[in-house]
Amino acid sequence: MTGTDPSTGADSSLDALAHDLDRAHVFHSWAAQGALDPLVIAGGSGTRVWDHAGRTYLDFSSQLVNVNIGHQHPVVVRAIQEQAAQLATVAPSTAHLARGEAAKRIVARAPEGFRKVFFTNGGADANENAIRLARLHTGRDKVVSAYRSYHGNTGAAIVSTGDWRRVPNEYARGHVHVFGPYLYRSEFWATTPEQESERALRHLERVVQAEGPGSVAAVLLESVPGTAGVLVPPPGYLAGVRAICDRYGIVLVLDEVMAGFGRTGRWFAFEGHDVVPDLIAFAKGVNSGYVPVGGVIISDEIAAGFDERVFPGGLTYSGHPLAAASIVAALDAMEDEGIVENARRVGDDAIAPALAELAERHEVVGEVRGDGVFWAIELVADRATREPLPDAAMAALKKDLVGRGLLPFVQDNRIHVVPPCVVTDDEVAEAVALYDEALAALPR
Amino acid sequence: MTGTDPSTGADSSLDALAHDLDRAHVFHSWAAQGALDPLVIAGGSGTRVWDHAGRTYLDFSSQLVNVNIGHQHPVVVRAIQEQAAQLATVAPSTAHLARGEAAKRIVARAPEGFRKVFFTNGGADANENAIRLARLHTGRDKVVSAYRSYHGNTGAAIVSTGDWRRVPNEYARGHVHVFGPYLYRSEFWATTPEQESERALRHLERVVQAEGPGSVAAVLLESVPGTAGVLVPPPGYLAGVRAICDRYGIVLVLDEVMAGFGRTGRWFAFEGHDVVPDLIAFAKGVNSGYVPVGGVIISDEIAAGFDERVFPGGLTYSGHPLAAASIVAALDAMEDEGIVENARRVGDDAIAPALAELAERHEVVGEVRGDGVFWAIELVADRATREPLPDAAMAALKKDLVGRGLLPFVQDNRIHVVPPCVVTDDEVAEAVALYDEALAALPR
Repeated sequence: MTGTDPSTGADSSLDALAHDLDRAHVFHSWAAQGALDPLVIAGGSGTRVWDHAGRTYLDFSSQLVNVNIGHQHPVVVRAIQEQAAQLATVAPSTAHLARGEAAKRIVARAPEGFRKVFFTNGGADANENAIRLARLHTGRDKVVSAYRSYHGNTGAAIVSTGDWRRVPNEYARGHVHVFGPYLYRSEFWATTPEQESERALRHLERVVQAEGPGSVAAVLLESVPGTAGVLVPPPGYLAGVRAICDRYGIVLVLDEVMAGFGRTGRWFAFEGHDVVPDLIAFAKGVNSGYVPVGGVIISDEIAAGFDERVFPGGLTYSGHPLAAASIVAALDAMEDEGIVENARRVGDDAIAPALAELAERHEVVGEVRGDGVFWAIELVADRATREPLPDAAMAALKKDLVGRGLLPFVQDNRIHVVPPCVVTDDEVAEAVALYDEALAALPR
Repeated sequence: MTGTDPSTGADSSLDALAHDLDRAHVFHSWAAQGALDPLVIAGGSGTRVWDHAGRTYLDFSSQLVNVNIGHQHPVVVRAIQEQAAQLATVAPSTAHLARGEAAKRIVARAPEGFRKVFFTNGGADANENAIRLARLHTGRDKVVSAYRSYHGNTGAAIVSTGDWRRVPNEYARGHVHVFGPYLYRSEFWATTPEQESERALRHLERVVQAEGPGSVAAVLLESVPGTAGVLVPPPGYLAGVRAICDRYGIVLVLDEVMAGFGRTGRWFAFEGHDVVPDLIAFAKGVNSGYVPVGGVIISDEIAAGFDERVFPGGLTYSGHPLAAASIVAALDAMEDEGIVENARRVGDDAIAPALAELAERHEVVGEVRGDGVFWAIELVADRATREPLPDAAMAALKKDLVGRGLLPFVQDNRIHVVPPCVVTDDEVAEAVALYDEALAALPR
């Protein structure tokens, strides 16, 4: 295999082989399998990836919004290699040094009052276990989450999810959905962020009351709903949700799987929203997905309930050594290199103004919104009606961007601008120029 | 950190640190957290593991029955290191060479008519997705599984599970449980394996009929129920289950998470049982857990149903490059080194006779049973009544074995004899001598 240097060792026959093997034997996520034509990726570095032939792409998707530290950070790669040399796997019932060091670093970034981490394999089972903890802690069943949300693909996580992916999978009970704040497409006839926030809170509280507050175990929300459109909550919303949870004895679970560990230019997206949750679900950014891992950061109050009582959840790879070692290395490197601060600065100084300008130049841009390196460009067929740009146009736009050498994250009628947190001003300028060209090339 | 050589670099202060960090920050699977005193493990090789101080243990647990290839197989370690150097993570929507190579090797070991693999993060979400496929394929809801079973800790997987772990987690609907064959504790008043098989089949068919066959999407069974006691099915049982599934248009899912990829001395445990399932869930043995991974091997008939229709399941780390590379290396090494054959030979020649002798020597042994390197010693307070040995005695026995330098797998009133598939005759003799001493030391 090639890939460490795109200028040497190019071998397009490996691309053909990778493509053929994929089509013959790999069953893909969230797709009809028949017509797939997946892009071959063989290597990467920082914000770039490439195929075996050496064709490179600027990665403004961070794959699935997980490569926060950039591709192939040498410190994280080395940590995985060294842990692999020492011990690749160990049972969760043991104590393992890297696991303890990883947990220590995670709780060090959490608010006061969080000292324990339950490790899972990814974001879905992080949410599963957060829901489990909330139900056992409260003795209640129901979980309230948002229609515009994605929480993972397993039993309770997929039914907590609000988008279309829930519908063919509704085999878990006890789930209730609400509308969250989204001023551009308000469900509450609001016209200002303050009004949207107040009305979304009133709607949430009315649903909780109508469901019976004594039956609600958890409110589960993405701090910033991601796949649903990078819906940064308006001022006061998350603090208001906290107040509602407190009023009715409900556990507040914030899903930081996509938003956490740097994406918003903060360690956790909920910082700056005047809110402290009871449980924090994480995955992706914690180690940039270099090894599959996720987990729940547990408040001391909830953790204490399981000192004497058995926690009825677990998994073989909980606190896996390779995952733990990669977390230690990734969090240390992000700290040492100011990677979270970079995400904030690039967001404020480069992405925000560039996208604002893009919105001015292109009638098709309905709204741009975001924070840090977590942005969405929402495209509309008509600015007045806000009718979404049709799927066919979005598919053409995606294909065009890939052809221009940019890996975009396209979802519904939006381009999510979600590069690694290590992205530079120049790379933002390069990407925005490609967005600009592709938007200009859209048929009108 | 130390660990590659137990004779050098011993540092017991690291053991204390690992233990302290664990107790301060790690929330453990399936346990009350207060009184845990986990063993520190720092390194390993083959069938041995050790702590930082250099104290070694003979690993007859394979951790959680996953280290089939043994600890730190150099070919698999190197494959992980090399893939880490090239590309540690990539989105599942891309094509990646190692992922395709892994899928090719997995289906090469499956029966005819299986050409596609959906990769997950572990066994739980393998079963989740197998259930999803079965429901979508049949348009039916219910899943029939066994009371004596374990299928994972997420939404549908934990409610498919039959043991106590299901009960605090029953938030998924559509699950029905049956009793499977277990002659030593027959639920069917049977006295021979043939009778147990026939009666268990009649029970299963009666439940299917009573539930309404048109409502049953899947029968989900571990080919050999593992954690429930290594319950090797009697002759004819699995073939009979297949016939029942065929009669009523039900998808047969065999869970090979623990039993698959060498544990029974075959690539799949269902081989030799005259049965071909529709979906095969796997994890653990496929790469010995060196990187978290699992998946579903999908029959061509079921896969074809998703050529035009969207499969509504997926996950960020599906087909993760490190996992894929470790699968390729592990399966190639197992093939090249005859590791599956070794498991069969050691099971037949060393484990079976040694455990039979142990049963003769110790009144407390009620039954020994198993296949390959997958065995259980069932301990009883009274051979006549078959009353299980009490929990306190089992806990003492476990502690005694660890003190003697053996990591046992203790579950309920059983010791599961589940070493890596690379175990030697001498190591079996060493372990059996320790079991012998520990059983002799039990208070009467």
